[in-house]
Amino acid sequence: MRKILVIGAGKSTAYLMNYFLEKSDSEQLELHVADLNPENVPFFVSSHPSCKVIPLDIMDDSQRISCIKEADIVVSMLPARFHIKVAEDCLNFGKHLVTASYISKEIRALDNAVKEKGLVFMNEIGLDPGIDHMSAMKIIDSIRDKGGKMLLFESFTGGLVAPESDNNLWNYKFTWNPRNVVMAGQGGAAKFIQEGTYKYIPYHKLFRRTEFLDIPGYGKFEAYPNRDSLNYREDYGLKDVLTLYRGTMRRVGFSKAWNMFVQLGMTDDQYVIENSEGMSYRDFTNLFLPYSPTDSVELKLRHYLKIDQDDIMWEKLIELDLFNPHKFFTLKNATPAQLLQKILEEKWTLNEDEKDMIVMYHKFGYELKGQKKQIDANMVVIGEDRTYTAMAKTVGLPVAIATLAILNGRIKTPGVQIPIRKEVYEPILKELASHDVVFQEYQVPYLGYNPDSVAS
Amino acid sequence: MRKILVIGAGKSTAYLMNYFLEKSDSEQLELHVADLNPENVPFFVSSHPSCKVIPLDIMDDSQRISCIKEADIVVSMLPARFHIKVAEDCLNFGKHLVTASYISKEIRALDNAVKEKGLVFMNEIGLDPGIDHMSAMKIIDSIRDKGGKMLLFESFTGGLVAPESDNNLWNYKFTWNPRNVVMAGQGGAAKFIQEGTYKYIPYHKLFRRTEFLDIPGYGKFEAYPNRDSLNYREDYGLKDVLTLYRGTMRRVGFSKAWNMFVQLGMTDDQYVIENSEGMSYRDFTNLFLPYSPTDSVELKLRHYLKIDQDDIMWEKLIELDLFNPHKFFTLKNATPAQLLQKILEEKWTLNEDEKDMIVMYHKFGYELKGQKKQIDANMVVIGEDRTYTAMAKTVGLPVAIATLAILNGRIKTPGVQIPIRKEVYEPILKELASHDVVFQEYQVPYLGYNPDSVAS
Repeated sequence: MRKILVIGAGKSTAYLMNYFLEKSDSEQLELHVADLNPENVPFFVSSHPSCKVIPLDIMDDSQRISCIKEADIVVSMLPARFHIKVAEDCLNFGKHLVTASYISKEIRALDNAVKEKGLVFMNEIGLDPGIDHMSAMKIIDSIRDKGGKMLLFESFTGGLVAPESDNNLWNYKFTWNPRNVVMAGQGGAAKFIQEGTYKYIPYHKLFRRTEFLDIPGYGKFEAYPNRDSLNYREDYGLKDVLTLYRGTMRRVGFSKAWNMFVQLGMTDDQYVIENSEGMSYRDFTNLFLPYSPTDSVELKLRHYLKIDQDDIMWEKLIELDLFNPHKFFTLKNATPAQLLQKILEEKWTLNEDEKDMIVMYHKFGYELKGQKKQIDANMVVIGEDRTYTAMAKTVGLPVAIATLAILNGRIKTPGVQIPIRKEVYEPILKELASHDVVFQEYQVPYLGYNPDSVAS
Repeated sequence: MRKILVIGAGKSTAYLMNYFLEKSDSEQLELHVADLNPENVPFFVSSHPSCKVIPLDIMDDSQRISCIKEADIVVSMLPARFHIKVAEDCLNFGKHLVTASYISKEIRALDNAVKEKGLVFMNEIGLDPGIDHMSAMKIIDSIRDKGGKMLLFESFTGGLVAPESDNNLWNYKFTWNPRNVVMAGQGGAAKFIQEGTYKYIPYHKLFRRTEFLDIPGYGKFEAYPNRDSLNYREDYGLKDVLTLYRGTMRRVGFSKAWNMFVQLGMTDDQYVIENSEGMSYRDFTNLFLPYSPTDSVELKLRHYLKIDQDDIMWEKLIELDLFNPHKFFTLKNATPAQLLQKILEEKWTLNEDEKDMIVMYHKFGYELKGQKKQIDANMVVIGEDRTYTAMAKTVGLPVAIATLAILNGRIKTPGVQIPIRKEVYEPILKELASHDVVFQEYQVPYLGYNPDSVAS
């Protein structure tokens, strides 16, 4: 029996666990699940004969080392900051490692040592980062194989609510960590390249600089730029590309409405509101508006943000109970961002039977034999329910498939890496397709941002 | 002879030096001026028979200690971060210390030791902080002496260009460190209290939340809130006050125009523009605007910031040459804030014969014998030229007066302190008045922010 150790049995690991358990006989697998709270491991996992649940405090060196020593390969689904401890042990005891997180500086620094020991430390192999890398590199490589030269690469991902469960004015529900949604875009200007020109957008303008995207059968989406559009420029071999842009997808109108929170200052996580405990939603809203002895909070906000009488943005605020004087916060010394999150969680949480949706959209502009061309590719995955979410599927399956492929020696190039080589993405994308995680590709006219280019 | 050591002979120390030199005979003073670049000490200072210039690298312990040991009192006009080294030496060798800077945590921590040795460490005794503390506490104490109860305190300061030298559309020139102007308001939300309600304003709204102030004879000004309105709540004894607000004064229209830079993202100091060297002003402006193959930078900016055809804000940008393709930056790897500063310095620097102006405005609302009342007080100081500025006068004179008063034992309560006690502010304000640094006080109707209050 080969032993796979999964550390961290969070909500989003249903597909990951299932994958291993279903193959436990055919592939001779034993699944070890280590978690600080073993009672959180779902019954269908813990009750499986090939599964062993291990209570593990990740900060306890001897516990952690004994788990890792026993395993043949380790999957860390912990929050990213804990990966380094696991990675160091894997290096010491000669175990392969798989994570869905961004490579940290500390983990990158292990690369030489990992290579010397012939180990594979595969990172960023979830959804985004993960499926985005693999699906993009597959098409970029195919364009290059034909002799094409890349001109433009744009890539967008969104975790959204499925159309059949979409019943609020924001066309949005939380499908991942709500805090990340509230904090999105903060911490520095967004940076990208359009037609060879650098562009910078400050946080307070980010949600007004969206562009639209169409997915046949699913309608229109919008996207705002990520902070990190230039991050993979070298990894993807796109140093001379004219346009490089990565973004986050939302349903049309979300960003303009979200911008109201940004403008008010409600997404700020840098200071605490001392009297937050017992504060009403209405008083919270009023914190960000000028004092008036006579005017209502409603009118002050309408005037401050210039919201017309007939603007649906207004109804979006009403839907969230933002002016309710009878709803109160219980959090002490909370930041505005924490209080806003509370307000949103009340309305944007998926019910047990509701479904989420993952959308991804790539654009590849290139020149081939003197002609400018473009391929658009998109992926839509709908979840089954609140446990078997599209998010859990698109994060968990690539991790699981990669883990087994490494264990079986089908992925074997050693080092700290992300899934951008054909050896890695080809088999994984193929297997993902059999799980209906699949991209539609279209040849479209090269659009770029320049009408002249279209003509040529 | 008593020896006064002034460390740091920056541009703004003309009045400070003059004050000591003029009294060198009558008060038996010897002035020691220590600076890293002794050649920067003005000739009228260095050539004075009672002055000794000492080359001093503040990081050189033995040099610094020998200067301080020799002095009877020390004035530090260094950048605030260097004060602590001077303060520690003053404590060790039993010397009084005077600075115009905010008390740092490190310096506050010396309080007990300073008291034990019977030393006076006077801080925040320039303009703002300094004259604001003294003039405010004088009126607050007089209200309390009559049995009044404070309801409202607002305080505003501005370093501006004098009306006779005011010849640009912004009605503004640099009279202090330009970088501080570019960075103003950054680093966290502004926080204040209006009529018992906390209010928070994020940076990107700060310059649209101004209020107007009138100074008879000088016309209308505007003020935007400082980040730190609640800082002196306890020091001033204003814990129960309904309104507490501190702000920065500008000529009307400045803040709304400055907000254009904020909205564009040009004041950001958090990232560098890699290709800044050799970039034109026009290309800099275009960094913050969407790409277009056809539209001009001008039209894109007008549209982005919704600037009407007939809006004078537009002319303010033109005046700064923001769209000039033939002016280039020479700075390498500069932040947007650094590049903006360059653009502004070209236009907003005082000529040799131009004058600056300091304005300060306080409002004191209070209740006396059941009646609500208000006192407004304001100060205007006009500079003589680019050396004898109003800024140098209002910063340097209070420092100088306090130094001599401490030396002469007229200010003697020991400890790390700011000038809020009568023992300190009374003689200093009196002497400042003889230098035409004087407040006009008016009894006005209590305005508060509540019409009901006015009626009562």
